[in-house]
Amino acid sequence: MATILLTGFEPFGGESVNPSWQAVQALDGVRLDDEVQIRAVQLPCSFAASLQVLQENLEHYHPVLVLCLGQAGGRTDLSFEKVAINHIDARIADNAGAQPIDQPVIAGGATAYFSTLPLKAMVAKLQQAGFAASISYTAGTFVCNQVFYGLMHLLQNQHKVRGGFLHIPYSPGQVKGKQLPSMPPELVTEALKLCLPVALQTEQDWLIAGGTLD
Amino acid sequence: MATILLTGFEPFGGESVNPSWQAVQALDGVRLDDEVQIRAVQLPCSFAASLQVLQENLEHYHPVLVLCLGQAGGRTDLSFEKVAINHIDARIADNAGAQPIDQPVIAGGATAYFSTLPLKAMVAKLQQAGFAASISYTAGTFVCNQVFYGLMHLLQNQHKVRGGFLHIPYSPGQVKGKQLPSMPPELVTEALKLCLPVALQTEQDWLIAGGTLD
Amino acid sequence: MATILLTGFEPFGGESVNPSWQAVQALDGVRLDDEVQIRAVQLPCSFAASLQVLQENLEHYHPVLVLCLGQAGGRTDLSFEKVAINHIDARIADNAGAQPIDQPVIAGGATAYFSTLPLKAMVAKLQQAGFAASISYTAGTFVCNQVFYGLMHLLQNQHKVRGGFLHIPYSPGQVKGKQLPSMPPELVTEALKLCLPVALQTEQDWLIAGGTLD
Amino acid sequence: MATILLTGFEPFGGESVNPSWQAVQALDGVRLDDEVQIRAVQLPCSFAASLQVLQENLEHYHPVLVLCLGQAGGRTDLSFEKVAINHIDARIADNAGAQPIDQPVIAGGATAYFSTLPLKAMVAKLQQAGFAASISYTAGTFVCNQVFYGLMHLLQNQHKVRGGFLHIPYSPGQVKGKQLPSMPPELVTEALKLCLPVALQTEQDWLIAGGTLD
Repeated sequence: MATILLTGFEPFGGESVNPSWQAVQALDGVRLDDEVQIRAVQLPCSFAASLQVLQENLEHYHPVLVLCLGQAGGRTDLSFEKVAINHIDARIADNAGAQPIDQPVIAGGATAYFSTLPLKAMVAKLQQAGFAASISYTAGTFVCNQVFYGLMHLLQNQHKVRGGFLHIPYSPGQVKGKQLPSMPPELVTEALKLCLPVALQTEQDWLIAGGTLD
Repeated sequence: MATILLTGFEPFGGESVNPSWQAVQALDGVRLDDEVQIRAVQLPCSFAASLQVLQENLEHYHPVLVLCLGQAGGRTDLSFEKVAINHIDARIADNAGAQPIDQPVIAGGATAYFSTLPLKAMVAKLQQAGFAASISYTAGTFVCNQVFYGLMHLLQNQHKVRGGFLHIPYSPGQVKGKQLPSMPPELVTEALKLCLPVALQTEQDWLIAGGTLD
Repeated sequence: MATILLTGFEPFGGESVNPSWQAVQALDGVRLDDEVQIRAVQLPCSFAASLQVLQENLEHYHPVLVLCLGQAGGRTDLSFEKVAINHIDARIADNAGAQPIDQPVIAGGATAYFSTLPLKAMVAKLQQAGFAASISYTAGTFVCNQVFYGLMHLLQNQHKVRGGFLHIPYSPGQVKGKQLPSMPPELVTEALKLCLPVALQTEQDWLIAGGTLD
Repeated sequence: MATILLTGFEPFGGESVNPSWQAVQALDGVRLDDEVQIRAVQLPCSFAASLQVLQENLEHYHPVLVLCLGQAGGRTDLSFEKVAINHIDARIADNAGAQPIDQPVIAGGATAYFSTLPLKAMVAKLQQAGFAASISYTAGTFVCNQVFYGLMHLLQNQHKVRGGFLHIPYSPGQVKGKQLPSMPPELVTEALKLCLPVALQTEQDWLIAGGTLD
């Protein structure tokens, strides 16, 4: 039985929930088919501990695919990250009280890694099914980007399987009284069931236009 | 059998669908319980024809409750309108080619009407169930506001039942490639099933804080 | 010497400045020409005290024109309000600790008043000069709308001169570290110098398209 | 006399102006002091031609500092780009009709380059002076990012001077009738006069918190 490893984060920044964990928790133990099972793991929102927990789970599960999720307050859709950068700049302290400024994730590491998931195919699948989805070109400079960069570094050098990062909007309960976009975590869970098989089965990503106009 | 009348609009502004119609069409003929049935009607996006079609359906169905829906591109949630103003100012032509500027909906009518639905109770019900919902204080100056104002004018003077207006976000398919908020029409349909009974059963609206900080 | 009365608010909601006061304070005592002088007054951000201070200044100065300004965090431009509603719904407490919910500004008053300023002409003048400006159709439900409604009620019934309300964006200093729109208060001051003469001199507002697409 | 090279783009995407060119054109030939003169150059909005024109001007002027500017519709402030990625994905055709999809800027080049300007010091200087400014972590995937990546590649390998990229909001004239943030090009010009000396004089960037919360 092959394993897909999904990760979500614990709450941070004063929030009482983190929809990234709510969305993946519902899939822990779920089988995509007779050959693939999903395992969901919660990562601490801490620069010191996050990559350690990730690495332990990579070594424990030997997954065939890894997708880490994080909350991106203010975003409008399921945004699959294209690029992880070797840069940390924390606007607030993490849950362990650390606030590193202008430091690399891994000293001497490459400036950046691209996701190795077939992002165009995954986004197209979700859009066809009525979900709001897109490719993003920044995972920020906080623990989300650190985990994404650390993941790609580990996959590049050790585990040699595909991986990536998905940012999701606030949940509706987090934006009461504020005019901010949101998405129910149950919808995110449904979206994952649709796009994970695409990630497994698509060898060569689709060559369809995407991109930004900046 | 009592009737709840729901209306949605035909597409406008270059769009090929209008999620306000998609959301209510799915409820046409649906019974809320043994005593109440929903009827869904599509309104033309035309200043000249919209109120006529609305009035004909009010006279045909004699509904116990009326909720008109419209698409509000860029909004983040289910926003129940509080106030309809006696003012039309069309930024683009409607579907019949008319573009009235700075005209009243009804000459000599009141400056504005407030919705007579229990908005606080309806929004609270939806928020508790995980939907993004709020009260809005402008229905704009296009056909949506015209229909809302015309509805409240008719209900005030003739039909004497409760009514209001609900603006909904774009559907995901309308915002592909744009970082704009959206909501699947199926979610809007589910939300209507939840909040329409509240509208029927709540005599006195809840006195809970809402409002804006402008 | 005729007087134009401008008002701005004291800071609220945890802010240390209020750009609406910064923008008008710079014009206190300034003459537009040989016949018209500007007076700037700061209003308390308090439901109980705001209209009292406004009324005292109306009686003291007998202005020929009144424009009240307020900060609208998140807005992108100089937005001239079209409609004041007889409705208060405070999401947070005002500076005196009061948080009225679902109450009228003036019991038994009209549902709403429209601004009596030539908004289209004023906005056009500003846009031609390179400012971001528009007409807004909601002044919210907090002290800004209360002051606007109270002003229009007083002008309608007693003072018989033109008046209106202008919402302005955050100042740049208020949005550090947040991706929110802002405008330097000095720009707002320049804009006022341009559009106040238009307000004085335009008898009949221009019939040009504006409006929204909601 | 040392030269600072500024670039802006020609209009694209259906616009009739490009504020990035308007802002730098006003500085062409201006001296910062007795030793440094600014030259402003317009780049074509074309993947095929943009880097060629940039390279010719680098070789012609041998600048001591290079800052390329581009319009980023929808952004709220002066956003200095941190990272250029080796990736092109054009959502629309460029001005020459080309629409490359998922291609590298430079085949075999590094995944990304970081800006070599002292971004924290420059942003702090601008914020202190009342400008809205921040660091951005994505320059997009269109010609702006291509020029930024190509610039950093040339500076890394040949010219060995500092360089970077600045995205600016729409001008007010571009957003009439739309609720989108904007900034007058004249303000951008003033901001450049303030932050270019900082870029020249700051050896080691300031270690102050910035970053995002994604």
